[in-house]
Amino acid sequence: MTEARKFKNKYGYFTDDGREYVITEPKTPKPWANIISNGDYSLMISQTGGGYSWRGNAGQNRITRSMQDIIKDPWGKYVYIRDVETKEFWSAAWKPVMADYEYYEVRHGIGYSIFNQKINGIKSKMKVFVVPDAPVEIIEITLANESERKRILDVTTFFEWGLGFAPDEHREFHKIFIDSKYEDDINGLLVDKYLWGFPDEKGRNNNISWEYTAFHAVSERPKSYDGDKESFIGIYGHESCPRAMKEDKLAQRVGRFVDASGSLQVELELKKGESKTVVFTIGAAMKSYEDPKELANKYTNVEAAQKAFEDVHKFWSQFIDTEEIKTPDEAMNIMTNVWLKYQSISCRLWGKSAYYQTSAGYGYRDQLQDSQIFLISKPEYTKKQILMHAEQQFNEGDVLHWWFTIRGGGPRTKCSDDLLWLPFILEAYLKETKDFTILDERVSFLDGGRATVYEHCKRAIERAFHRFSPRGIPLMGDHDWNDGLSAIGNDWKGESFWVGEFLYEILKEFISIARERGDYQFADKCKIVYESLKENLNKYGWDGEWYLQATTDHGLKVGSKENEEGKIFLNPQIWAVISGIADKDRAKKAMEAVTKYLLKDYGTLLLYPAYTKVRNDIGYITRYAPGLRENGGVYTHAATWSVWAYTLIGESELAYEAYKRICPPNRSDNPDGYMCEPYVTPGNTDGPLSPYYGRGGWTWYTGSSQWLHRVATHWILGVRPTYEGLLIDPSIPKEWDGFTYRRQFRGATYLINVNNSAHVNRGIKEIYVDGKLIENNVLPDFKDGKEHRVKVLMG
Amino acid sequence: MTEARKFKNKYGYFTDDGREYVITEPKTPKPWANIISNGDYSLMISQTGGGYSWRGNAGQNRITRSMQDIIKDPWGKYVYIRDVETKEFWSAAWKPVMADYEYYEVRHGIGYSIFNQKINGIKSKMKVFVVPDAPVEIIEITLANESERKRILDVTTFFEWGLGFAPDEHREFHKIFIDSKYEDDINGLLVDKYLWGFPDEKGRNNNISWEYTAFHAVSERPKSYDGDKESFIGIYGHESCPRAMKEDKLAQRVGRFVDASGSLQVELELKKGESKTVVFTIGAAMKSYEDPKELANKYTNVEAAQKAFEDVHKFWSQFIDTEEIKTPDEAMNIMTNVWLKYQSISCRLWGKSAYYQTSAGYGYRDQLQDSQIFLISKPEYTKKQILMHAEQQFNEGDVLHWWFTIRGGGPRTKCSDDLLWLPFILEAYLKETKDFTILDERVSFLDGGRATVYEHCKRAIERAFHRFSPRGIPLMGDHDWNDGLSAIGNDWKGESFWVGEFLYEILKEFISIARERGDYQFADKCKIVYESLKENLNKYGWDGEWYLQATTDHGLKVGSKENEEGKIFLNPQIWAVISGIADKDRAKKAMEAVTKYLLKDYGTLLLYPAYTKVRNDIGYITRYAPGLRENGGVYTHAATWSVWAYTLIGESELAYEAYKRICPPNRSDNPDGYMCEPYVTPGNTDGPLSPYYGRGGWTWYTGSSQWLHRVATHWILGVRPTYEGLLIDPSIPKEWDGFTYRRQFRGATYLINVNNSAHVNRGIKEIYVDGKLIENNVLPDFKDGKEHRVKVLMG
Repeated sequence: MTEARKFKNKYGYFTDDGREYVITEPKTPKPWANIISNGDYSLMISQTGGGYSWRGNAGQNRITRSMQDIIKDPWGKYVYIRDVETKEFWSAAWKPVMADYEYYEVRHGIGYSIFNQKINGIKSKMKVFVVPDAPVEIIEITLANESERKRILDVTTFFEWGLGFAPDEHREFHKIFIDSKYEDDINGLLVDKYLWGFPDEKGRNNNISWEYTAFHAVSERPKSYDGDKESFIGIYGHESCPRAMKEDKLAQRVGRFVDASGSLQVELELKKGESKTVVFTIGAAMKSYEDPKELANKYTNVEAAQKAFEDVHKFWSQFIDTEEIKTPDEAMNIMTNVWLKYQSISCRLWGKSAYYQTSAGYGYRDQLQDSQIFLISKPEYTKKQILMHAEQQFNEGDVLHWWFTIRGGGPRTKCSDDLLWLPFILEAYLKETKDFTILDERVSFLDGGRATVYEHCKRAIERAFHRFSPRGIPLMGDHDWNDGLSAIGNDWKGESFWVGEFLYEILKEFISIARERGDYQFADKCKIVYESLKENLNKYGWDGEWYLQATTDHGLKVGSKENEEGKIFLNPQIWAVISGIADKDRAKKAMEAVTKYLLKDYGTLLLYPAYTKVRNDIGYITRYAPGLRENGGVYTHAATWSVWAYTLIGESELAYEAYKRICPPNRSDNPDGYMCEPYVTPGNTDGPLSPYYGRGGWTWYTGSSQWLHRVATHWILGVRPTYEGLLIDPSIPKEWDGFTYRRQFRGATYLINVNNSAHVNRGIKEIYVDGKLIENNVLPDFKDGKEHRVKVLMG
Repeated sequence: MTEARKFKNKYGYFTDDGREYVITEPKTPKPWANIISNGDYSLMISQTGGGYSWRGNAGQNRITRSMQDIIKDPWGKYVYIRDVETKEFWSAAWKPVMADYEYYEVRHGIGYSIFNQKINGIKSKMKVFVVPDAPVEIIEITLANESERKRILDVTTFFEWGLGFAPDEHREFHKIFIDSKYEDDINGLLVDKYLWGFPDEKGRNNNISWEYTAFHAVSERPKSYDGDKESFIGIYGHESCPRAMKEDKLAQRVGRFVDASGSLQVELELKKGESKTVVFTIGAAMKSYEDPKELANKYTNVEAAQKAFEDVHKFWSQFIDTEEIKTPDEAMNIMTNVWLKYQSISCRLWGKSAYYQTSAGYGYRDQLQDSQIFLISKPEYTKKQILMHAEQQFNEGDVLHWWFTIRGGGPRTKCSDDLLWLPFILEAYLKETKDFTILDERVSFLDGGRATVYEHCKRAIERAFHRFSPRGIPLMGDHDWNDGLSAIGNDWKGESFWVGEFLYEILKEFISIARERGDYQFADKCKIVYESLKENLNKYGWDGEWYLQATTDHGLKVGSKENEEGKIFLNPQIWAVISGIADKDRAKKAMEAVTKYLLKDYGTLLLYPAYTKVRNDIGYITRYAPGLRENGGVYTHAATWSVWAYTLIGESELAYEAYKRICPPNRSDNPDGYMCEPYVTPGNTDGPLSPYYGRGGWTWYTGSSQWLHRVATHWILGVRPTYEGLLIDPSIPKEWDGFTYRRQFRGATYLINVNNSAHVNRGIKEIYVDGKLIENNVLPDFKDGKEHRVKVLMG
């Protein structure tokens, strides 16, 4: 069988169905990882075999340890294979031994990674995944003897225990509280930690234990084990050539006095042509309700591992397969159908950790936006997320900018936009589901009391109403969406025109919600602000050819033609269009400026030109190198919104350009320049002032993944929910012949077939639903759980 | 010349004068380091070559980066040597290349380390030190061609820039704010960082630049340079075999977009028998008053480096050579004369960083105690330290438990003893100097206002007076000296008997100070507390055979025969003796208990038996493994005080035993068990319940170094200041024939020769000063700046 190899380059390719990315060369330009999660237990693994595991929905709650180093790869959970007779050893992935191989292949899939290789006549297959419904990861290794003689091999694991903390710099202190023991009845190690970096109920530090027991077990009786990094690696040694590989057996040092690591060693005899499978598990059982031994024994055998692997496919299918597009754009298909959902859910919402950032919390704005990814497949998950974020609000309406998802707590800041994302995302939920009961859900405030979700949203908006400048523009506070504008408005004088536009967009919808509930007084109040916002933003925010970003506490303009650097910012232009602040003429002008200054080879820049000088009055955005991240690079999150804005002004071709340039598989032609994985979005791409123009960074853990999915489906394909039903309003490249789109909507399934033989960008001629012509471009809301065929003729 | 090799073992030895420790085997059981500092710029370097540099008196303000890992050694500032013709390469220290050597030798000296080796026919000598009066370190390398042919060699440096932060886990963010450039006129690199982890004047984070410019320069025109870790190491590479060693020249990547590192490469041609010297410098100039180029050019040449190295000896001589003992105990001589002073000053007071801990601050109690090391050589430094700590006090008398020495700030806690160390150390200063003017120095409080040092001490004592239990015992608060008792008394109910003893000791002296100043009211108040303390501590604190440590908030005894674990604590026994709380009988009994339960093979344990179960009501001490650190190990700081207490009850032989067992050179016979450097004190040594009984840890950065010096000189040799003059009261082993002691005292120099041909432990028969018999054992206070000969006859 030869497989189609999509977007193939010298490092790898997508499989035909787009569900696997296959890497054939372990030395990619940066570690190309997979972030695997079941929502409670997660792991990161790169194509080299480097990686680490964590539990409890927070990257900081590490189970195994890593030191993150892009150049040298992280420390990993490593597996050594050794020929017991010849003493030759290599590893089941390229790292750490980095042995010469006959072939090498890594398949990063949805919920698993598989390492296939052949070295020294031994074929090995290492499958790494997380059990869908238990805090257990499985490392299943199959060895096949393809040599001409009987082989005796041993397989040895090694990793360091982290157990409850991620910052590695205090390891010299934390590691001494770890306690490991070998237990015969699980063929493995049980490990506790008597210190956790959280205060106890009285606020005392260093007075609670890590609330889990970790384990590492194997499906065969091990011939030896070890729990000590020093005995395994050897002092001044290196994982590529550890002391343990020079000894017949492992040192079996466990207990409370070692430099805690985990190793199990099993021996396998393989006749010529024979193959055998051994299953290792790593897990962390919460002491209060899980038995680590039970967990270990349940999953540490070949049958259970195989069953669990089948379950992984079923598990992910729920999130992936409720929606499918087929367009002429293979990159769009692969990303929309598979990887953007996976990235958003597995990494951003669940794993919350990647090479570039280890998070312990939910960002108020961040995961709220991300949760839109569930709207089509499982809107109840979006609802859950909305309620969870509503709970992080104070009675005064402001919120925790982020909070720890383990044991709570986070910073109350003066950020000007975070609180407003609650009504914004609520609107998306309502339009998808029409589930207005959410407005009556009662949710607590952080500082006591409870109120309905409606009331929570109202308080957020009212809080924003208290933060206006005398000329009627929202104040910047600590910063707006752009965290790097961190010094503009701390004195509550500087303004954010973008917050004004965002608030305008929210009010537009919230006025009717308030009216529907009979809260006419608030609706009227909103209406007044709504109208004055439009007037004031256009009066004070229009710079002649585009909209300003902000003014500083000292009254200086930011994002103005008067500036030498940071003349034009992206967000105020596209949100003027999205929100409707801009009339047709200004929308056109503003977007022309975006096209002229910001739409570049690798996506739409966040601002232009980048700051080359540090500005204490603007903030840390000016401290980045010019062209890097927010400072004039492509910040993918915002770049997706430019797609949306282009469709709104009818510039479908530009919208598609703005999309294509940030759609990762399209960067496959220059992997050494781009550096990042072609199957997930990067947080940012270097802008023109960078000598590494076009280089991506901060992959996986970025809110851009959900938005890239959304702008493709809702704004390019133009299939989006309204209260009336599912709207069909494509804004596609003329050259497309059409596309199909299968998606769930309020229980029913719509099989939409769009015919663009007319080769237009926009415009619907006819729509047939189940064979019947309908009158407008809104599909009826069947609520019947059935499939409905939709034929759309553009023209 | 053959040198005497003192305390020689398989890893190394002390030179005859004790001023160098020579390591002949790079693979010691743990990295055996040197901490070199001039008070403002510091560096750590191990015998392998691993290490890092920092500035501004705080380990967290790193200039070069390291990841601390005892097993694998830290990342270092590495130097590669390469034969340009054969392409063979090795390193100027063992790490990172770990090449086979003909010989290898590291000399850790006072203010420098020298690496001598011979590899591939090339003798190399690398001298690493810090310029005494500038923020510059010098790496001077001399290569001698001992092969039979002409050799062309290049020498290449490599290290990562840290620039202002130590916790390495956020490097992925911080590194992108570093900016490097190559400058022809310094033959090297200049490096800035546009982000520093301190808030600006408005409390805004991420809004200030690192306040230094770092540089790396070389005395020859380099043939190439690099500023990028990725191009130097190569992705997935390793420092043992970097990509750069496979290329003719370095990649010359600098600027703001790289993974900031520093490398310079010079080429040397060496005829047979020829040798050449090249000088590299690394430094960090504070932008507001130093010019980095000037600094670089001043020191980056062979003559300046040689001059600076001579200055290092002169610099350290001021602190080392004002005092010298000669006893029959070589370990005591070497440690007292050289290394304990060096450790206390170079690491604890100045460098404040080592493998086991990176500090950014001064501990209120810590460096105050440490500063006693200056009393003999430079008491004005002790005074400066006292005034600095007094400034960290609030008007209410309590203090910052520690504070950042860069840009200020630290935690205000409910610790019960920290504030009291001010009057305690003041007393030591007064007795040494009789400089009572310090009491009138006016020093500010943290929360406004100023007062005399006397008043600061008084407020500390008054604050302590407000923290008593109803039965007249001081309360524990967050903890006492023993930080690990962190959960005993947070509700202000649990008591600390040790704090009572400590306060008693302080009051004993302070009552007369108050009287002298005419503050009779306070003197009387102190007197009342003083007397009631003695009564109450003996009434409630005596457990039958020893004194209790504490009671908990729930009223449980800690350190009582009623306890199964933690039956007896060291501090309450020895401070009962030191303070005079215990009468003769109880002093004897309490110390008998110390001898019975605590004085073990490797020193006096902090408590017995160690806690094996976690106790939430006691604190994190119980979370350590049994026998580790405070949990029933030898905590060297307190173990030194047991020497003091034994001398006070006349048990000179036991005092000497307690001393000998913790005096590091005495552990040279079992370096693989002890693991630590024999030339500096460890913070702790594993106790009997540890499987690694006798293993040391936390070397260098420990307050035990000053105290080990003090108990040897003041309490074993018994030469200690009183207001009347220098008291001579030895408490030595009978078998000693005597000892000599040269020391400064109030300007004059005393050459003391003690004759113990009577072979007694204690007792003075006759003392002759400058040939004249004196009447008691207190040497007159000459204040004449001259030398005085003192003959002491024991008996």
